[in-house]
Amino acid sequence: MKKIKVAVNGYGVIGKRVANAIMLQPDMQLIGICDVATDWRIKVANTKEIPVYAYNGETYEKMKLANIEVVGILEDLLKQADVIVDCAPKKFGAQNAERYRKAGVKFIVQGGEKHEVAGHSFVAEANYESALGREATRVVSCNTTSIVRTLSALKRAGLLKNARGTLLRRATDPWESHLNGIMNTLVPEPEIPSHQGPDAQSVDPELDVVTAAVKVPETLSHLHYWTVRLSRKASKEEVLEAFRSSTRIAFIQHEDGLSANNAVKELMLDLGRPHGDMYEVALWEDMLKVEGDELYYAYLVDNQAIVIPETIDAVRALTGSETSGPNSINTTNKALFIYPNYFKQSYLV
Amino acid sequence: MKKIKVAVNGYGVIGKRVANAIMLQPDMQLIGICDVATDWRIKVANTKEIPVYAYNGETYEKMKLANIEVVGILEDLLKQADVIVDCAPKKFGAQNAERYRKAGVKFIVQGGEKHEVAGHSFVAEANYESALGREATRVVSCNTTSIVRTLSALKRAGLLKNARGTLLRRATDPWESHLNGIMNTLVPEPEIPSHQGPDAQSVDPELDVVTAAVKVPETLSHLHYWTVRLSRKASKEEVLEAFRSSTRIAFIQHEDGLSANNAVKELMLDLGRPHGDMYEVALWEDMLKVEGDELYYAYLVDNQAIVIPETIDAVRALTGSETSGPNSINTTNKALFIYPNYFKQSYLV
Repeated sequence: MKKIKVAVNGYGVIGKRVANAIMLQPDMQLIGICDVATDWRIKVANTKEIPVYAYNGETYEKMKLANIEVVGILEDLLKQADVIVDCAPKKFGAQNAERYRKAGVKFIVQGGEKHEVAGHSFVAEANYESALGREATRVVSCNTTSIVRTLSALKRAGLLKNARGTLLRRATDPWESHLNGIMNTLVPEPEIPSHQGPDAQSVDPELDVVTAAVKVPETLSHLHYWTVRLSRKASKEEVLEAFRSSTRIAFIQHEDGLSANNAVKELMLDLGRPHGDMYEVALWEDMLKVEGDELYYAYLVDNQAIVIPETIDAVRALTGSETSGPNSINTTNKALFIYPNYFKQSYLV
Repeated sequence: MKKIKVAVNGYGVIGKRVANAIMLQPDMQLIGICDVATDWRIKVANTKEIPVYAYNGETYEKMKLANIEVVGILEDLLKQADVIVDCAPKKFGAQNAERYRKAGVKFIVQGGEKHEVAGHSFVAEANYESALGREATRVVSCNTTSIVRTLSALKRAGLLKNARGTLLRRATDPWESHLNGIMNTLVPEPEIPSHQGPDAQSVDPELDVVTAAVKVPETLSHLHYWTVRLSRKASKEEVLEAFRSSTRIAFIQHEDGLSANNAVKELMLDLGRPHGDMYEVALWEDMLKVEGDELYYAYLVDNQAIVIPETIDAVRALTGSETSGPNSINTTNKALFIYPNYFKQSYLV
């Protein structure tokens, strides 16, 4: 089988995880990463023997000076690529798109970019097929991904009327918490609705969803609280069954002692997940409540990890190498050890 | 080769790491773990197919009720063990020692116990040989281990007169930061000297060392600041060379962007270390300063990980299966990917 040649531009929080995930896929080859940094973050790529490319000529010289083994610049990388995954900081994806188009390489941007940059927004379980063979797609943000996964599951079961959510957002990523954190405070986003609701509609315009968001002083994960109006009265079991139709929603239990973000993070580390990554929406089963046609639940979103499997599926969709969404999702899940029950599957030590 | 049969009592922060480390050793077999908990922490052991034993009959019943696969109780485990590593909470090791002695099984306790419980305190590079064939030893605490590693290195080079340190201690372990943390404050230990100085003397009574300690509101690692009076004027290079005599002291650089605890933690995760564990003392090379006969430096201690390689070496010392400290250290280092230069060695993805 000819492997899909994938490049990654931006080796940060998302890029390094995408790169690792590509290396784990049976049908993909990581041909290199590209970045502007010259510090420990890029030295790790050298240590892992991943070919490193510079964002431009100036960066190339700086990398050389910092004793980084650098192979060439972005255009050299693009020459070999079937698909490039842009994981550059917000807004850079839009300008990078020009370079990708010029090189005639299919590309994926992340949720920090506008829908228009790719003209298509992607969540594997919701709309894999509509991305088949496209030039580009945009994997929506971590929070939006979780919203589409959960609400799509309710929609598939014919249970969803509308959904209203409050999002407690981790303030910054762990690696840079010494640079820009917040402490002893809560920072509400000034506007209601926050952008995640409309963003979910970029994947599925039919979703009736409104969100409000607030930054909280921790770096572990986001926490969502949802109130859903069901299309009819339903039982808790019917709702759980609907969520079970997604392979990327995992139930957790307070009665297992999983009562806070840090405990769930520790479980991921105990399971041997790289970086302690949680690819699934982790939804508290015993906390979930249905009253008539109203549904209440809460879940955790690992903002560093949840979009990784979606990005891998997007690679297959753009190249058209796999025309079935469920097949791609299954391949990705297997390679990344994604299972909806954390205790029923053997993981690496 | 007949493998050493090792049991672990207490599958918490240290115990689960010791268990994983044992499974990675070429000359050891993990025959089971024992605990009192019945929640997600133990379910992970089931998931990894590690035989689980209950602390006593009552725990056995509780585990059964919680759907944990449980094989027997501690005494059943002891019947098969050559050595048991006690990783129970502070003070429990002392009472457990009676059960180990009664079963005639060699044992290792952790630094939370008093020296007298084992009659011997252990740091591999300092006194491996004196533990050979003993009934028991005590692996000293994380901070004490770091102190003995660093000061022993200076002592071996004939450079150490005395050392005075200020220890910034992480307030609690990540997994339980929702249960007992501190925030917006600094909590000085009421007594100077703090216990770590005298504790280092339990390994090497010749060390002239005084410590003061303060709890800080984070969970990542400890941070030590040291002022050392050298036995004579020396150059920075001489001091670095002395530290290089330890394979468990790693140099890090501010100029690589490794400027805070969270960045160093992220590096460990990037290198694929399980749990992002840092077994080495991570000492800032570019920050280290020598002025005449005075030496100043700072380093990080991963309280969850630093004692793991020491514990593995202690297993070999007690059984006498390896009579050379350096040989045991080398085997352990290889199995756990411990290298003094983080960027010069390929790690797992």
